Amino acid sequence: MMRKMTVCAYGLEEKHREKIRKAAEGFGFSVSFYNGWREAGEELRSSEVILGCEADALAVSDTCRWFCTSNAGVEGHVNSPHLRSDMLLTNSAGAYGVTISEHIVMAALMLLRRQMEYTRIISERRWERGLKVHSICGSRILIMGTGDIGKKTAERLRAFRPASIKGVNRSGRDNLLMDAVYPVERLDDLLPDTDILIMCMPGTGETAGLMNRERLHMLPQGSLVINVGRGSAIDQEAIKECLRSGHLAGAALDVFEKEPIPDSDDIWEIPNLLITPHCSGNVSLGYTVDRFVDMFLEDLDRYVQGKPLLHEVDRKAGY
Amino acid sequence: MMRKMTVCAYGLEEKHREKIRKAAEGFGFSVSFYNGWREAGEELRSSEVILGCEADALAVSDTCRWFCTSNAGVEGHVNSPHLRSDMLLTNSAGAYGVTISEHIVMAALMLLRRQMEYTRIISERRWERGLKVHSICGSRILIMGTGDIGKKTAERLRAFRPASIKGVNRSGRDNLLMDAVYPVERLDDLLPDTDILIMCMPGTGETAGLMNRERLHMLPQGSLVINVGRGSAIDQEAIKECLRSGHLAGAALDVFEKEPIPDSDDIWEIPNLLITPHCSGNVSLGYTVDRFVDMFLEDLDRYVQGKPLLHEVDRKAGY
Repeated sequence: MMRKMTVCAYGLEEKHREKIRKAAEGFGFSVSFYNGWREAGEELRSSEVILGCEADALAVSDTCRWFCTSNAGVEGHVNSPHLRSDMLLTNSAGAYGVTISEHIVMAALMLLRRQMEYTRIISERRWERGLKVHSICGSRILIMGTGDIGKKTAERLRAFRPASIKGVNRSGRDNLLMDAVYPVERLDDLLPDTDILIMCMPGTGETAGLMNRERLHMLPQGSLVINVGRGSAIDQEAIKECLRSGHLAGAALDVFEKEPIPDSDDIWEIPNLLITPHCSGNVSLGYTVDRFVDMFLEDLDRYVQGKPLLHEVDRKAGY
Repeated sequence: MMRKMTVCAYGLEEKHREKIRKAAEGFGFSVSFYNGWREAGEELRSSEVILGCEADALAVSDTCRWFCTSNAGVEGHVNSPHLRSDMLLTNSAGAYGVTISEHIVMAALMLLRRQMEYTRIISERRWERGLKVHSICGSRILIMGTGDIGKKTAERLRAFRPASIKGVNRSGRDNLLMDAVYPVERLDDLLPDTDILIMCMPGTGETAGLMNRERLHMLPQGSLVINVGRGSAIDQEAIKECLRSGHLAGAALDVFEKEPIPDSDDIWEIPNLLITPHCSGNVSLGYTVDRFVDMFLEDLDRYVQGKPLLHEVDRKAGY
């Protein structure tokens, strides 16, 4: 009997299917493709390898030995009661840095250059030109989360000549793209010297509530906050207040405590808040799919050889 | 009698006035500051050196020997009947690259990531996430105009890993920030291989009408156009048609054939056009004022020594 692989990740084009099929068949797998885990249904129960997405698929992965999610964030997976200890879990962190870093730079520039106000001015056919703008050049940037997204963001922002790019992570482990990286315990010392705070952390027990009311107020008057990680990392009521009072000049949030944002939530109405519908890292960018497919195939090669996988999730850390 | 200097450029803060006053007085000038040339009025008539802005000031610059404009574009100045041949004319090209390159990158990302559509989606409190987006990564970029703005734009875009950054200028003279630079005669060969066309040229007889209907159609289906130079460089009716037909996926125009755009113009209503009110290079960014003041003082030092000025305008070329 052939070994069975089911692919039910989103965003794949024919070229990606062809590439997976060729590699998998070379290793003796028969491969089935579905558009999402619901469509795959019972097929998942008898699959040895699954390239999927949401944690829900784990509930029907009875014989699965390796589950790879095309997501970067895996809080749903590591907390799922269906994740067996004898199952390998890999994710696709590393595929999203290009698209999410572009979102972050766009959002930073829109806030600095007051583009949301200019959009309103132009929608009213007015010709008002003199809004006071600011620049990345000379700004002090702090990036919370120094994985693929944080690093690619630093690389891109560097070209704009900021005053500094500092990073924060769990360990304080340095990288070549940031001026300095500090352990998260030092956060309170860093916030008062930050003009642009960029949050790209996974959703874990440690990141939940990290930017609470007190820490938001440690940021200087007129600073900016951008969050593309998880909504749980910010006290949402507190950031709304900081935006309304002007303590923060602006914010760009792609993630929220509750998604979709409830229709009745007054967060929709804050003029200096750029809301995007958790789209900064969606798979509509071909490059992202190219990357997660290549990462999966790299690990497939190692899997059939019995080597440790490169993209295995640290279940305890939660990412 | 002391030599007289009048400063009527916009955007100066007290620190800039102090810096100019100190330098000028050191060279034996008495300096007066005004907010614009109208406020300066008759004072201009007896000034040897003027740091001004618009060409209108030339009409009352009877005894002026050196007129420095804080503008980058000088088509009004070189075409003014009041510009005497015995008068030095310098401009401030070189002060605007930081702010305008940030506008260009913002606009490119907004178009690639379909931010104008997301803004509408969010304004209707919808949660639609899957719009097909594109990336600077892998895009072929062509920059028309390789001065300070073009170079700083190339430097910033490079960090996003485009497939290529080519430049076009009058001479074809190369620079280190672009993969290759071609003379404008080669433009027709380059347009078919361009995903993002960036126009940052001065307004001269040679640039007027350069992107005519025929050349807009040489760009590939789905490409993007960004113009921060002068509206005269594009056939405005033709680009409107290209946007409506979808030949161009989007455009970002900061400059127009007529400014302000007339209220009745249907250009206001094109959904895939990002209109900004000629604000990409305004002096509300402190860095820009720091730069043009420093450039002026650098040339003041040379002026009093009788050396050639660094920022003198080529009247024949028009920039």
